[in-house]
Amino acid sequence: MSLVIVGTVAFDALETPFGKTDKIVGGAATFAGLAASYLYDHVKLISVIGEDFGDNLEIIQSHSIDVEGVEIVKGGKTFFWSGKYHNDMNTRDTLITELNVLADFDPKIPASYQDCEYLLLGNLTPQVQIQTLSRLERKPKLVVLDTMNFWMDVAMDDLKEVLKKVDVLTINDAEARQLSGEYSLVKAADTILQMGPKYLIIKKGEHGALLFGEGQVFSAPALPLADVFDPTGAGDAFAGGFVGYLAKVKSVNFTNMKNAIIYGSALASFCVEEFGTQKLQNLSQADIQNRIRQFVALAKFEISE
Amino acid sequence: MSLVIVGTVAFDALETPFGKTDKIVGGAATFAGLAASYLYDHVKLISVIGEDFGDNLEIIQSHSIDVEGVEIVKGGKTFFWSGKYHNDMNTRDTLITELNVLADFDPKIPASYQDCEYLLLGNLTPQVQIQTLSRLERKPKLVVLDTMNFWMDVAMDDLKEVLKKVDVLTINDAEARQLSGEYSLVKAADTILQMGPKYLIIKKGEHGALLFGEGQVFSAPALPLADVFDPTGAGDAFAGGFVGYLAKVKSVNFTNMKNAIIYGSALASFCVEEFGTQKLQNLSQADIQNRIRQFVALAKFEISE
Repeated sequence: MSLVIVGTVAFDALETPFGKTDKIVGGAATFAGLAASYLYDHVKLISVIGEDFGDNLEIIQSHSIDVEGVEIVKGGKTFFWSGKYHNDMNTRDTLITELNVLADFDPKIPASYQDCEYLLLGNLTPQVQIQTLSRLERKPKLVVLDTMNFWMDVAMDDLKEVLKKVDVLTINDAEARQLSGEYSLVKAADTILQMGPKYLIIKKGEHGALLFGEGQVFSAPALPLADVFDPTGAGDAFAGGFVGYLAKVKSVNFTNMKNAIIYGSALASFCVEEFGTQKLQNLSQADIQNRIRQFVALAKFEISE
Repeated sequence: MSLVIVGTVAFDALETPFGKTDKIVGGAATFAGLAASYLYDHVKLISVIGEDFGDNLEIIQSHSIDVEGVEIVKGGKTFFWSGKYHNDMNTRDTLITELNVLADFDPKIPASYQDCEYLLLGNLTPQVQIQTLSRLERKPKLVVLDTMNFWMDVAMDDLKEVLKKVDVLTINDAEARQLSGEYSLVKAADTILQMGPKYLIIKKGEHGALLFGEGQVFSAPALPLADVFDPTGAGDAFAGGFVGYLAKVKSVNFTNMKNAIIYGSALASFCVEEFGTQKLQNLSQADIQNRIRQFVALAKFEISE
């Protein structure tokens, strides 16, 4: 049994109000995989990189993440993204996008990955997400889809096809409004849940997240942070922590989904505290449990009528 | 013992994407008083109106709210505000502001109000807030201050004087950033709590509210609503529900503050469901308890390590 994550493994170059980096390791699958690895032992990645990625794969492998499904293209160059965050850290400009080997990504699923029980379709072209799903011999127990406004702009039809085949969708509030055409998030959720997913998670960054499904709603807080150093990968770390927790507890229901969102939020809160994957590379189980306790304290109230 | 609320009693004319109204009853003290009246029996208002307000005071009096401190200026005209909400309901344009009798408001405190134990200084010029405080013979057990960016723009020095004398400040996130000069709400709270208040509540509208104080943080959810009909008065209803709950339970500490925020949020969530004060005029205790239960379900999760 395993948790398979499909997504980018990439180089990023970042500029934030706190500093800038040269090319560092990034990518949706990297962030999600690292986050999930703290909660579940059998995490397996599907991605594509160029030869230039060199021994950076060790960052991932050192977390006991299986990289057999990460194709290395001889002479190819790894996907590269460069961005600059504004002072509010909520908006950013893309400076450079070099697709490189990602342009022809044809996801290959090693035989050893066919035990996939939990599948995270990380933010990527819907075409690759569909291909991955169709190449699995058994339908996984849970399929989680992460996507973004870009794919709604350029590949809405493909995205709607994927939506029919997934259990959980995670997007942000602006994307929920765009996908549904509804301003109210309650109405947006109603519309989106008719497109396929049984559960919808609306990520609201510093405002937390909402979970809709089974006729219920859950509001998860975000931990107020003194410093947000680099928001890159927070959404991916959230998705990885979310599905990693569900793989660990082996049971999918609204109660576990709520806890999974808290774990996802905790991993995301670590992610933004340093540049790139730095913080996610060096957590202890005690760090994570302490942060979970902070979330519990943050949200807890007791009203006796 | 009583809860005294100082603020405007006004006429509003509103336009939202759902319709428009002629002059209807509004004002910070009206919304806050109505909200508080569901939780506490001894609510007393201090305000000023013109003769044109006529028998509209009955809307307030019918909730057993004491209006002895509401001065009626002979031949005067009541404060009038007219505004138009944009499609997102989060931003609005002020179309008309006629201060009228509010321009010379000199708050008078009836002898029967000197039993004031809980004081809400509703959104109003800081000058009037200071005067009210100075005219009370005894310092109240709890002073809650509501204010807005407008007073930070035009009367920051006066506002800082009031801040030194209050226990709780309620403002929104943009205002917390403006008042503190800090973007991070954690840093903003640190700065503001050094200006005087022991507790800071940051209202985030559809994203809930944060409470800072006693070295702790609490994140309260907002109830996701299918329709927000008219946001006018939501912040006032929140403040009224908040202080009304504390007056009822008679004990001020972080635990009770958290519950007070949930009650304030519940009252605010009703407020926005109809135009003006309409919904706040006609609630039952069962309505309120049902909504509180919705908030409990919305925020509850249990993680067993």
